[in-house]
Amino acid sequence: MILSALLTSVGINFGLCSIFFTLYTILRKQPCNITVYAPRLVSQGKRSLPTTDWVRKAWETSEEEFLSTAGLDAFVFMRIFVFSLKIFTFGGIVGLLILLPINCMGSQLRDDSVFQNKSLDSFSISNVNNGSNRYHLFIRNCGLHSTIIFSISVIDFYLSYNMVTLIARFGEYAYISSKRIACFYSSKPQPHHFSILVRGIPVPLGSTCSDVVGRFFQEYHPSTYHSHAAVRRSSKLQILVTDAERLYKRLTQLKNKDNAPQRHRRDGCLGLFGHKVDMLDHYEKTLGDIADNVRIEQTSLAGKEVPAAFVSFKSRFGAAIALNIQEGIDPTDWITEKAPEPHDVYWPFFSVTFIRRWISKLVAYVTWNVLTILFLIPVALVQGLTHLDQLETMFPSLRCILRMAVVSQVITGYLPILILQMFLFFVPPIMIMLSSLQGYISWSQIQKSACCKVLWFSIWNIFLANVLSGSALYRLNIFLEPKEFPRVLAEAVPAQASFFIAYVVAFGWTNIASELFQLIPLLYNYINIFFVGDSDESGDDFEAPSIPYHSEIPRILFFGLLGVTYIILAPLILPFLLVYYCLGYIIYRNQLLNVYVAKHQTGGEFWPIVHNYTIFSLVLMHIIVIGIFGLKKLPVASASTLPLPILTLLFNEYCQKRFFPIFKGYPAECLIKKDRQDQNNPNMSEFYDKLANAYNDPALMPIKYSGRFGSHKLPLLQSSDV
Amino acid sequence: MILSALLTSVGINFGLCSIFFTLYTILRKQPCNITVYAPRLVSQGKRSLPTTDWVRKAWETSEEEFLSTAGLDAFVFMRIFVFSLKIFTFGGIVGLLILLPINCMGSQLRDDSVFQNKSLDSFSISNVNNGSNRYHLFIRNCGLHSTIIFSISVIDFYLSYNMVTLIARFGEYAYISSKRIACFYSSKPQPHHFSILVRGIPVPLGSTCSDVVGRFFQEYHPSTYHSHAAVRRSSKLQILVTDAERLYKRLTQLKNKDNAPQRHRRDGCLGLFGHKVDMLDHYEKTLGDIADNVRIEQTSLAGKEVPAAFVSFKSRFGAAIALNIQEGIDPTDWITEKAPEPHDVYWPFFSVTFIRRWISKLVAYVTWNVLTILFLIPVALVQGLTHLDQLETMFPSLRCILRMAVVSQVITGYLPILILQMFLFFVPPIMIMLSSLQGYISWSQIQKSACCKVLWFSIWNIFLANVLSGSALYRLNIFLEPKEFPRVLAEAVPAQASFFIAYVVAFGWTNIASELFQLIPLLYNYINIFFVGDSDESGDDFEAPSIPYHSEIPRILFFGLLGVTYIILAPLILPFLLVYYCLGYIIYRNQLLNVYVAKHQTGGEFWPIVHNYTIFSLVLMHIIVIGIFGLKKLPVASASTLPLPILTLLFNEYCQKRFFPIFKGYPAECLIKKDRQDQNNPNMSEFYDKLANAYNDPALMPIKYSGRFGSHKLPLLQSSDV
Repeated sequence: MILSALLTSVGINFGLCSIFFTLYTILRKQPCNITVYAPRLVSQGKRSLPTTDWVRKAWETSEEEFLSTAGLDAFVFMRIFVFSLKIFTFGGIVGLLILLPINCMGSQLRDDSVFQNKSLDSFSISNVNNGSNRYHLFIRNCGLHSTIIFSISVIDFYLSYNMVTLIARFGEYAYISSKRIACFYSSKPQPHHFSILVRGIPVPLGSTCSDVVGRFFQEYHPSTYHSHAAVRRSSKLQILVTDAERLYKRLTQLKNKDNAPQRHRRDGCLGLFGHKVDMLDHYEKTLGDIADNVRIEQTSLAGKEVPAAFVSFKSRFGAAIALNIQEGIDPTDWITEKAPEPHDVYWPFFSVTFIRRWISKLVAYVTWNVLTILFLIPVALVQGLTHLDQLETMFPSLRCILRMAVVSQVITGYLPILILQMFLFFVPPIMIMLSSLQGYISWSQIQKSACCKVLWFSIWNIFLANVLSGSALYRLNIFLEPKEFPRVLAEAVPAQASFFIAYVVAFGWTNIASELFQLIPLLYNYINIFFVGDSDESGDDFEAPSIPYHSEIPRILFFGLLGVTYIILAPLILPFLLVYYCLGYIIYRNQLLNVYVAKHQTGGEFWPIVHNYTIFSLVLMHIIVIGIFGLKKLPVASASTLPLPILTLLFNEYCQKRFFPIFKGYPAECLIKKDRQDQNNPNMSEFYDKLANAYNDPALMPIKYSGRFGSHKLPLLQSSDV
Repeated sequence: MILSALLTSVGINFGLCSIFFTLYTILRKQPCNITVYAPRLVSQGKRSLPTTDWVRKAWETSEEEFLSTAGLDAFVFMRIFVFSLKIFTFGGIVGLLILLPINCMGSQLRDDSVFQNKSLDSFSISNVNNGSNRYHLFIRNCGLHSTIIFSISVIDFYLSYNMVTLIARFGEYAYISSKRIACFYSSKPQPHHFSILVRGIPVPLGSTCSDVVGRFFQEYHPSTYHSHAAVRRSSKLQILVTDAERLYKRLTQLKNKDNAPQRHRRDGCLGLFGHKVDMLDHYEKTLGDIADNVRIEQTSLAGKEVPAAFVSFKSRFGAAIALNIQEGIDPTDWITEKAPEPHDVYWPFFSVTFIRRWISKLVAYVTWNVLTILFLIPVALVQGLTHLDQLETMFPSLRCILRMAVVSQVITGYLPILILQMFLFFVPPIMIMLSSLQGYISWSQIQKSACCKVLWFSIWNIFLANVLSGSALYRLNIFLEPKEFPRVLAEAVPAQASFFIAYVVAFGWTNIASELFQLIPLLYNYINIFFVGDSDESGDDFEAPSIPYHSEIPRILFFGLLGVTYIILAPLILPFLLVYYCLGYIIYRNQLLNVYVAKHQTGGEFWPIVHNYTIFSLVLMHIIVIGIFGLKKLPVASASTLPLPILTLLFNEYCQKRFFPIFKGYPAECLIKKDRQDQNNPNMSEFYDKLANAYNDPALMPIKYSGRFGSHKLPLLQSSDV
């Protein structure tokens, strides 16, 4: 890609971002858009518009205030930006001041075109002269000069960058774990701190699971055992209850409007044919039928016990004891697991049998692999577009169009990324689906697993596939020859520098701006207002969206990977990345304060994933740099950098030992301190009452709308029925 | 090797075994040999000779009786024999009846010599005709016949053998874990069940480790904490105390004898030159000096605290809680570990600093690798001897000697194994030394680690090196090409069948017989009687030897590996193996009942090692069989056996999940039940008193002989001094 194509892309995306920003600043002032731009406030019952000076508000909110408002997970999420900004500011200043001039001074590529037609590769390491180019060295002092400067400055920079990153990493991990402990100390008593999930309960013939659990824990944890909730196979009931809830919602909407024409509708296909019926009667009748079914299902549910139960304890330490010690003699019985937050439990998991779960797991794994491989097709397509000459030979009839300057610049600079992004749009939901098949007991675990899946997917399919297919798809067999890996990467990665710079500008910037603009919710809102005549604010029922960490974290981390790997190869990428992270910092802070509400808290458990990913990026950088030094015929430099990946991995090992256990559970010290604090808490007896029912299956609980039905005099579900 | 060479070897070894047996039966009746053949009884204070009919005694002792006498570790050790006998009896009957005839019927090797000159390879799978040998098939129905019978019977046998082994494995694991639990239930209160070792104690400036530990556990485990013993760096003191004890022993011996000529000795080199001195005075003076040094050392010891302590609890469950839950906020502080038995603690471990320990670990690892590689030299030497023709070309002058029938038979059948055994003799002590450098806190852990080291060493250096160097040393590069592995093994392993048959006969049989005969202790005993005029029975001080599991288990398991891998390739090995295991069963039972006394009990923790090794053997067999089917051009058979190694590994995975946790610790159920039993035990208060001092460093405890010194009126260490 030549410089002007990059500038075109920057221009287009800068324009797009400006439009999004302006529109956002205008639209957010409209009261009708409050559910789009400040749903968090709506869900909290506030109806006043947030201050107009949103940038300053987002900037000025202190860390403590942010933490208490948005929660630890959001805080951890923002730390990705803070950390990346720190590292890339340091890297950017040094890289641009030292490395970029050296790259430009090189003459390896002999690119003597005018400045605007210069290939972006002239700014990358590909342009640096080879060390062993002895002919050159003798002829031109300049060559010798630049090579020595190159190796010294690169190694210095590389070492210091590595060290700075590792130290910052360590500090960051320590900081976040201290925040996790602090959050735990300041938290109110929460059911999931007092409970565990027990699976594999051995139920002898003739007794129920619930009895067995009660007896076991009364026997072996008499002083701490509080209560338990047996789990039942309730998938059918869940479907019925969901149906009833949806129907009830429609019914109340219909009643509130008293809108005669809408009340009557034909009962045939799509409401166009058949008899005209009163929808109110129709809905009420259906609701009655469902209620009957629910009753039948609930009575038959006693026999559908799953050998699992949520067991609650009187203290956090009591729960931790039961969690950490093998309970029964047979280690496959009485398997204990941390309980998730009550509304975080993934109930369908308990409904499937063991063997079906095992098969689903296998299917999920295979599908993930197949998907990852099949995705190479769109990637190859995209790569074809950046190599216009290939396209010309494939479609000779398009030659005259393709040779137009604007078309070629748009195609090479912008179109490939747009197509890639379109395909990538479908990846996170698919990964969530796959993860939910894998047998996790909570939504947050599903999200974490999907996050990892998307991360590896993007490394494989955006980074490696682009790098290798861009150079040559046949090189994929290097995975069978690990020794060749550094050399192949060193050849291929710098060659794709221009593509990834364009990727940051086109994909990164636009993405951040559209995150602010919330196009789809906005359109939905306007359609709602236009057709239904009302914005979708059903009062208490309104639910603010939660941020999809599984798609956001991989995306942001992927830009970090690009930054780390290209910091030495093509420092030109850094300014664009810094713009991305600055924008991201402000915009995501704003969104987390105004838009998103976390449905469940993991207590910062995403951080170890982030940490491991950064270490992976560093090791990848090391491998590439070793390969580069090999290619540039600097064997001493190559050998002297060999210990670095090993040291980095050892450092990671230490970090895992030092911090990871904190993210897996809480230490005895904290648990006991917190338990002692609660001994003087007058609300504890009330909490214990709630605790006993916290882990009841929502399908078995007194249904949400039963109270209101009472006032509507509908003969539906009463609390006492359940 | 030809059949007659094998018969020579069998003859020699049968003769040796008979001599050992006869001598044993005669010598054990002599009262002077009681310390050699029944030291266990001597150490228990019994002086009566065991019954003369030792074979029947060893056979008739019931399992319960054996378990209560010899302990769980010895029981687990004997189960290796029981299990091997079960498996190889089944394998032997089927193998000899079905596979051996098929092998003999084959004509691949065209060995038409007379029976006694027949190569042993004629009895192995090498002799079976290739499946694709179509010419043969058409000409000779017999060939077709034998190939089909071969594949069907081998696959059937192989599958059923695999299944029988796995099921037996599972049953055995279950049986031994139930025994482990039963032993725990029937055990008296033992300090190591009530204690844990805490390391990485964060000691703030100005306070001592002991205070910090006390405060921490009183704060966070107030209801269960009992006492603690801080660990000090006492290596210098330990040396002094050992010196003092040795000196004291010599002194009492001298005094008891009142043997004037022995009391005076020259004080110069080796007691031959210099002035004559009264040894009694000399020893007493030295003892006095050491006592002074001990006092100085003990007073300076307060400052030599190590940040580690043994913490004891009032209940087993309390100790398990503290063991399993992360204690402090920093996971690298307050690291908890299971406490070993008090006399099992490896105190020197605490004396070295962290960095020295780290370096020693590295050194141990590197040494182990170097040793493993260097050992190839004697192995190559040994292999040279089995290939007499190579020796002839190397030493042409020896040709006439080497061509003598007896010499050649002795050299090929017996000498190689003798040389190998000589070298192998030094391996276990070296491994123990290496393991003790690695930072284990107890002798039993050191022994377990050495056991694993010896196991891998013998697989690598006896099995693989013999197999591959026997065929061709240059094939060692197959480790870089895993795909080639089955083929190379399939070629090389059957070729070494005769060597390993000879190995079982020469090494296995003789080894077992010499274990019974106890040659070295016997010689030592006679020398003692002859020169000192007294057998080495110093009354209470007499210590029976303990069985060196780290050398015995690998040896016995290695024969199991040979049996499993050769069961299909050369079933002729099985009768010799069965003889080995039968002899071993009787002899080791006898030895464990009469000779060995376990110094410390691991509670059967060697079993998981045994289990993993068997699974490894099975997978190795699978790989070889897959290779064999490939070589014999039976691709369908080869492909159909491919899932077997995977299934075996999955089975192992399940076994590990199902049983391994039981060997790592005891479940809450057992701990609590046992604790409740003890509540009614009147001896508990006495036990608690003992518990407080159980983990004091022996160098700091009132020294063994101080009481006796009192009666001797020597001004040495008093309990109150310490």
